[in-house]
Amino acid sequence: MAFDNRRLAELANHDAFLQRHNGPNAEDVAAMLETLDIDSMGSLIDRTVPAGIRLGRELELDPPRSEAEALDYLYRLARQNRVAKSYIGQGYYDTLLPAVIQRNVLENPGWYTAYTPYQPEISQGRLEGLLNFQQMVMDLTGMSLANASLLDEATAAAEAMALCRRANKKAKTNAFFVAEDVFPQTLDVVRTRAHYFDFELIVAPAEQLAEHDVFGALLQYPGDSGQVRDLAPLLASARKKGIMTCVAADIMSLVLLKEPGALGADMVVGSAQRFGVPMGFGGPHAAFFATSDKLKRSIPGRIIGVSRDERGHTALRMAMQTREQHIRREKATSNICTAQALLANIAGFYAVYHGAEGLRTIAGRIHRLTTILAEGLRRAGISLAHDSWFDTLRLTGVDAGKIHGRAMAHDVNLRYFANGDVGLSLDQTTTAHDVALLFDVLLGEEHGLSVSVLDAEIVSAGTSGIPQGCQRESDFLTHPTFQRYHSETEMLRYLKRLENKDLSLAHAMIPLGSCTMKLNATAEMIPITWPELARIHPFAPKDQVAGYKQIIDELAAFLEEITGYDHIAMQPNSGAQGEYAGLVAIRRYQATQGEGHRDVCLIPSSAHGTNPASAAMAHMKVVVVECDANGNIDLADLRAKAEQHRDKLSAIMLTYPSTHGVFEEGVREACDIVHEHGGQVYIDGANMNAQVGLARPGDFGGDVSHLNLHKTFCIPHGGGGPGMGPIGVKAHLAPHVPNHSVRTLEGVEADSGAVAAAPFGSASILPISWAYIKMMGARGLREATELAILGANYIAHRLGEHYPVLYKGANGTVAHECIIDIRSLKADSGISEEDIAKRLMDYGFHAPTMSFPVPGTLMIEPTESESLYELDRFCDAMISIREEIARVESGEWPADNNPLVRAPHTMADLMDDAWERPYSRETGAFPTQAVKAAKYWPAVNRVDNVQGDRQLICSCPSIDAYRD
Amino acid sequence: MAFDNRRLAELANHDAFLQRHNGPNAEDVAAMLETLDIDSMGSLIDRTVPAGIRLGRELELDPPRSEAEALDYLYRLARQNRVAKSYIGQGYYDTLLPAVIQRNVLENPGWYTAYTPYQPEISQGRLEGLLNFQQMVMDLTGMSLANASLLDEATAAAEAMALCRRANKKAKTNAFFVAEDVFPQTLDVVRTRAHYFDFELIVAPAEQLAEHDVFGALLQYPGDSGQVRDLAPLLASARKKGIMTCVAADIMSLVLLKEPGALGADMVVGSAQRFGVPMGFGGPHAAFFATSDKLKRSIPGRIIGVSRDERGHTALRMAMQTREQHIRREKATSNICTAQALLANIAGFYAVYHGAEGLRTIAGRIHRLTTILAEGLRRAGISLAHDSWFDTLRLTGVDAGKIHGRAMAHDVNLRYFANGDVGLSLDQTTTAHDVALLFDVLLGEEHGLSVSVLDAEIVSAGTSGIPQGCQRESDFLTHPTFQRYHSETEMLRYLKRLENKDLSLAHAMIPLGSCTMKLNATAEMIPITWPELARIHPFAPKDQVAGYKQIIDELAAFLEEITGYDHIAMQPNSGAQGEYAGLVAIRRYQATQGEGHRDVCLIPSSAHGTNPASAAMAHMKVVVVECDANGNIDLADLRAKAEQHRDKLSAIMLTYPSTHGVFEEGVREACDIVHEHGGQVYIDGANMNAQVGLARPGDFGGDVSHLNLHKTFCIPHGGGGPGMGPIGVKAHLAPHVPNHSVRTLEGVEADSGAVAAAPFGSASILPISWAYIKMMGARGLREATELAILGANYIAHRLGEHYPVLYKGANGTVAHECIIDIRSLKADSGISEEDIAKRLMDYGFHAPTMSFPVPGTLMIEPTESESLYELDRFCDAMISIREEIARVESGEWPADNNPLVRAPHTMADLMDDAWERPYSRETGAFPTQAVKAAKYWPAVNRVDNVQGDRQLICSCPSIDAYRD
Repeated sequence: MAFDNRRLAELANHDAFLQRHNGPNAEDVAAMLETLDIDSMGSLIDRTVPAGIRLGRELELDPPRSEAEALDYLYRLARQNRVAKSYIGQGYYDTLLPAVIQRNVLENPGWYTAYTPYQPEISQGRLEGLLNFQQMVMDLTGMSLANASLLDEATAAAEAMALCRRANKKAKTNAFFVAEDVFPQTLDVVRTRAHYFDFELIVAPAEQLAEHDVFGALLQYPGDSGQVRDLAPLLASARKKGIMTCVAADIMSLVLLKEPGALGADMVVGSAQRFGVPMGFGGPHAAFFATSDKLKRSIPGRIIGVSRDERGHTALRMAMQTREQHIRREKATSNICTAQALLANIAGFYAVYHGAEGLRTIAGRIHRLTTILAEGLRRAGISLAHDSWFDTLRLTGVDAGKIHGRAMAHDVNLRYFANGDVGLSLDQTTTAHDVALLFDVLLGEEHGLSVSVLDAEIVSAGTSGIPQGCQRESDFLTHPTFQRYHSETEMLRYLKRLENKDLSLAHAMIPLGSCTMKLNATAEMIPITWPELARIHPFAPKDQVAGYKQIIDELAAFLEEITGYDHIAMQPNSGAQGEYAGLVAIRRYQATQGEGHRDVCLIPSSAHGTNPASAAMAHMKVVVVECDANGNIDLADLRAKAEQHRDKLSAIMLTYPSTHGVFEEGVREACDIVHEHGGQVYIDGANMNAQVGLARPGDFGGDVSHLNLHKTFCIPHGGGGPGMGPIGVKAHLAPHVPNHSVRTLEGVEADSGAVAAAPFGSASILPISWAYIKMMGARGLREATELAILGANYIAHRLGEHYPVLYKGANGTVAHECIIDIRSLKADSGISEEDIAKRLMDYGFHAPTMSFPVPGTLMIEPTESESLYELDRFCDAMISIREEIARVESGEWPADNNPLVRAPHTMADLMDDAWERPYSRETGAFPTQAVKAAKYWPAVNRVDNVQGDRQLICSCPSIDAYRD
Repeated sequence: MAFDNRRLAELANHDAFLQRHNGPNAEDVAAMLETLDIDSMGSLIDRTVPAGIRLGRELELDPPRSEAEALDYLYRLARQNRVAKSYIGQGYYDTLLPAVIQRNVLENPGWYTAYTPYQPEISQGRLEGLLNFQQMVMDLTGMSLANASLLDEATAAAEAMALCRRANKKAKTNAFFVAEDVFPQTLDVVRTRAHYFDFELIVAPAEQLAEHDVFGALLQYPGDSGQVRDLAPLLASARKKGIMTCVAADIMSLVLLKEPGALGADMVVGSAQRFGVPMGFGGPHAAFFATSDKLKRSIPGRIIGVSRDERGHTALRMAMQTREQHIRREKATSNICTAQALLANIAGFYAVYHGAEGLRTIAGRIHRLTTILAEGLRRAGISLAHDSWFDTLRLTGVDAGKIHGRAMAHDVNLRYFANGDVGLSLDQTTTAHDVALLFDVLLGEEHGLSVSVLDAEIVSAGTSGIPQGCQRESDFLTHPTFQRYHSETEMLRYLKRLENKDLSLAHAMIPLGSCTMKLNATAEMIPITWPELARIHPFAPKDQVAGYKQIIDELAAFLEEITGYDHIAMQPNSGAQGEYAGLVAIRRYQATQGEGHRDVCLIPSSAHGTNPASAAMAHMKVVVVECDANGNIDLADLRAKAEQHRDKLSAIMLTYPSTHGVFEEGVREACDIVHEHGGQVYIDGANMNAQVGLARPGDFGGDVSHLNLHKTFCIPHGGGGPGMGPIGVKAHLAPHVPNHSVRTLEGVEADSGAVAAAPFGSASILPISWAYIKMMGARGLREATELAILGANYIAHRLGEHYPVLYKGANGTVAHECIIDIRSLKADSGISEEDIAKRLMDYGFHAPTMSFPVPGTLMIEPTESESLYELDRFCDAMISIREEIARVESGEWPADNNPLVRAPHTMADLMDDAWERPYSRETGAFPTQAVKAAKYWPAVNRVDNVQGDRQLICSCPSIDAYRD
């Protein structure tokens, strides 16, 4: 072996990321193909992907880089960003993420690779984290109910507008009031949303609220310029007029300010970013949404509720899932799917770690420093726009140019208003030294002010920027959870305890159809906590973000090549947001063509519920196209519907490969039909993982697609968010993608309103997808797709002998996922798809997708990252479960007392000496050798969903509740 | 609350690290003092720490910094290091730590906060990791047995020398042969060790080995200059002459070179650093030590062996613990205590992740690039010192000055020999581009050489630097563990599975007396993986390591103030190494005073076994001083022994507070007695956590102490290493601390030989202690000590009502730990201290220290980091166990079938339907509510130690072995 006849190029490839990302090695692939009786990967792909849509060449991308090379290169880019001290504010603030949370949550695959907690029994850890977040929001806002986060403050405000309308059916007007001192980016998003809801926006000084005839109103607290205004009289007069009100509030200010609930708000929204989540050039961050009790069943987004498991133990779950958009479909007024679970958890843990007293000190310091600054400026003769403040000041009548010069010399970012005013906001990281430097910057160095002298005088005079009536009087974070974990040791153990309750990719395959739970490689994740990426304000000057620009430009170029589109717009910060942005782009384009009347959107019956919800939000009329028995679009019906609606046809939304997991042969024809009838084609990118390197939606008929970067391009699911949903568009749509009111984008129409708060969405996680593509290269991406298809076919083959497999393609293969049908089994045995899902937990697996797209089925997507070992372990489990079902069918086990209906099994079951079951403890909890070697324990028994929804409790239960 | 009348200074202190590091808050402290019926912390300390040794003032340290400030400051220092491309070699090589291992092992408290695996039932994860390491070493060296790591290659070579002597009793000579091409730092350490063993060193060309009359020999493979020599004839002739041989081998080279076992070596040592462990300016890294089968019971250090648990399941454990130095005491020939477990695990996982094929590619590339370089240089007319190589070349007759100039311009570090030769070693990170640059540096830019052309020619000619007979022919890493985890997903799950088998500080208190398992704060740990600290060669030019210099200087200054010594020497990389270095400094000093004959070392009977072992290694005669019934040194006996040995008295070694956990009143008198009789005072720093800020060994009589930075100063235990044992000395000893042959230290005698391979030991973990002190400040450090004492007294008080507490101070208090006596309980009930230790696992705790310093006892040290909640949880568990013992005493439970003797309980116990025990499953495995809420499961039942030692198996068991 000492002489190796491989050439250097081959030797240099030893650590190619490809081999790390892909689960099966060459031997595994050979064995899998043999099992399928297919002679090569090429044959499998030929049978599976219709020739008519094949790309027919390798993608043109840079050659792949090793992990070390990609990280080195990315680090060079990152250092092209400049981390200046940011006082820009406007919804984004520097913050200190406690190291113990950074390392054990944000940098821990046990947290970031988990899926959305649809299966509560294996999600109690993050459910508790999210419940902490809700409790924290409820306490700080003074509201009765909060959800488990939304995408950002601006979209939360837009959701609030919609809720105002839904909850105020009596109002005869379609007008909505927005105070002129809301953040500009919030107004931008609200304006976009209002346009397609056909709402009239009235933007005026907050004081004029009651003068207008509106169904609802949005106020900012403190205002965009920093003013702290007593909202109680305004809110009272609004209430009297039957106007629903929403207050967009700064969460840190609420530590000191009277809570909006006490002021009379119906809803409170805001961003929890400054509770420990890095600015990250715009995101991801968790927004919050809180309401009064009477709105609790209309609140948008996910809510964590308290229920009980079968043993009567306290168990958390996502409440009211039946309200979700996939049920409402075209009746939806919101298309929200994902949340920002990982970031909400971080913000919640920040509150847990600091507690009320810690937060009071932090907020108190911010306010004191602001007061020192205000007082100093006043003495120096500077006029402030307002005589009240929490952390933000607006200087009027100053020489902004001179200040700008001095600020740049000190690497200090301020906010510069169009009228020459200068604004600044302080934050958790601001020190006395920083304020002294700010005096230098704002006044020149001859000011003679002393921070400590000012401090002493302020304390002795009792000076505050918070008007008397606006001061908080109520307690908050009184629950024991916010009092116990203030030492790092206790916090670490709390985080580990919660982590270990949850099943994540660090334990096992999560075979979720349509959700593509693939490897989130460590090398991809490492950059996101680099300060050069994390501590950048989204509105930082362009010359400070050259690194971000290049990362985003390079990623866009990669995605253009991968999709066949002409332009990628990075703003949408979720897949659903991408759908909305794509449909809006179509509508704007059609409007410029004088075809604004086109408003019919064709959607196949098999579509994910988000599609019709997005169409509804874009003010489109949904017309359903039927599917045939194989799950394919019925082309005849499509043609008929297109013909029928030809004058009003705006678009079709289709998913490819279909939600049934099949590469439909007729997709190109379907696109052609729509185009022939004047419509545009929206191709949902949820299933891009079956196409990358093999086919491109831009080639076979798509005009626009969104890409779920958190599915195909390796951004982790984070236990229920973040996600990113950039859209690819053909050139004619490019001017109509979302623009941004603060950071205007080139090549986009100036009046193309935003769909998200930040110009590039959740920019700080884009390097994950960048790194994935950079390390895989063209061949790697194609091979990953092929392996994903191979894995699904292997599973379909092995399980096909035990369960009916629905929907295969023309040549008997499936795409990257397969659906097994439980309906006849259920009829025969009483065992449901849910029982199988819960039973899989005992075998150490997360359930596949249940009852989507077809009720009574399970959809399985293995992805390319799962090894043959893991695929077999999963198939063995499913086959073993099938044998267990047979024992129920045969009557050996009673229908109501068998390991399936009693699944999942917990430690509580096993320790129960009264074991009155016809199967052994071992059969119950340790059904295989693999489980014995490495057992994952569901934390609770099966959770009662009905009870949880009936008695909706969304606050932290008393500690005693956990004791019984 | 909106107006806060606290001054800014107080508001700025909100996130003081002190509150995070310390477990009990102010309320807890008040409650604990009340329980103790002591009115204030001051009173407790007054009662506990003798007035005569009290410091009486606050330490003079910088004011404390917040976590963010300390990290910012440290990052500025780190950036004063310059990361140049290192080709220096000489035992240290750049390497790529796979990101999945970095994040999930090195940066994961689940791995780094674990203790040494003395309790195998709760340590199976890291035991498996270490067994992988042993298997990897055995495979690559071709030896029958390997240990679980030593401190560094140089000390491993010194241990090998001692083993040669022990294993070769027939040899009449005391001479040891060292080939002149061993690494200089290895020779340095071997020379120091040999001196005090009274061995003569013969340093000569390897070829002359058989010409000398020696008991053993050390060879380097490849040699220091890179030569690859067929050692088989040399080793055969040595064997014929009865010479034991040790080969110091480069682990990466062994992938391609014939393994030393096949060449005929008796022992093989080396460093596993280049298997993924950053250079870190010298350490920590894992050294390895492998032997032939016949030496298996004499191998130094820890060995992991395969045994069975009570159910007959495969279970790993540390084998032959009875051989450890604490048993051999003054008969010891080694004082090795700790290992480098964390780094050995990383190196083992590196091999697991790459597998044999991956390593062949890496080593093959390194070798190819070296061959390209050699061939190019030859064509350019450069002479090489040898015509064989693996990765290292030595250029002769070159213009070193010119080369140096070009190298500096390109940030390239080469090795410059005194004779003008230039050396270089390639590594895993070297690329074709780097080699092209090296041509530029070595030849100037006009060389006209092409790496790819040379590559092609070499492949076609079959050129290699490895002589025919030296090529490896045997397979390695054939065990399935090295074949299955090559995808990141599989590797991640493997690491998580192992992590979750082990109990660490992330789960619970680890109340180990004398081991000080306190918080290892995340902020302290974050810097160690910064490239500016990690990728620095220990022999890098001084101008590239200004950051390290300042960190080390600042830390030394802190420690001088804390200990009262005049100088701190950072070289010793373990506590035992520190003891040795301290005693050697005493002996050197005495020699310069014409008192080299002084060789008696007084050691109290209560001493840790390492003390006499260190004394023996320093060629001292140990005389034991008795202790009185209270565990204090018998001053009369001390005076008598000092008198008796006054002409030969060299030193006393004492531990303060004593190993019995008591502040002896007579310590100052004891020191005075020894000084009066011409001796020096060595104070063991193991218990510094009871003194920091309250008393200083340098003030009350110490001439020298070592400090366990991994105990008192927050370096984590890493599951059994790394540690750091710098020594503090009075001025007269300062010139006699270890120097270094490569990087000479100022103020130290030139002939003061080294005790460790690197000049500053494990330099890369020094920032941990630096950060701890920087963030705590003087008040914080003192308060931590006070809380540690309070915690121990609280436990002694609560447990004292249930168990006898041994050894209290004059006023009825204990120091920072307490000892409970199990002997009478055991006599009455048959329940042993081991049963209690194992039973604690069922309650979710690690055992206290067992039977040290007194057999039949448990020593408990809570540290300041444990909250009152956790202290109570522990006390409740111990009290509950006492009640269980009562049920055995009363005969309610049989002596051989009760939850104590059957502890720990595993999942296998619970799933067993045949539960024939007089207590319930719940009592067995879930004895408290806290356990039910968060159960940690021991992975195996009680492990059979006798069986494991009798049938010593130290290689990975077959996968089937885990199945049954």
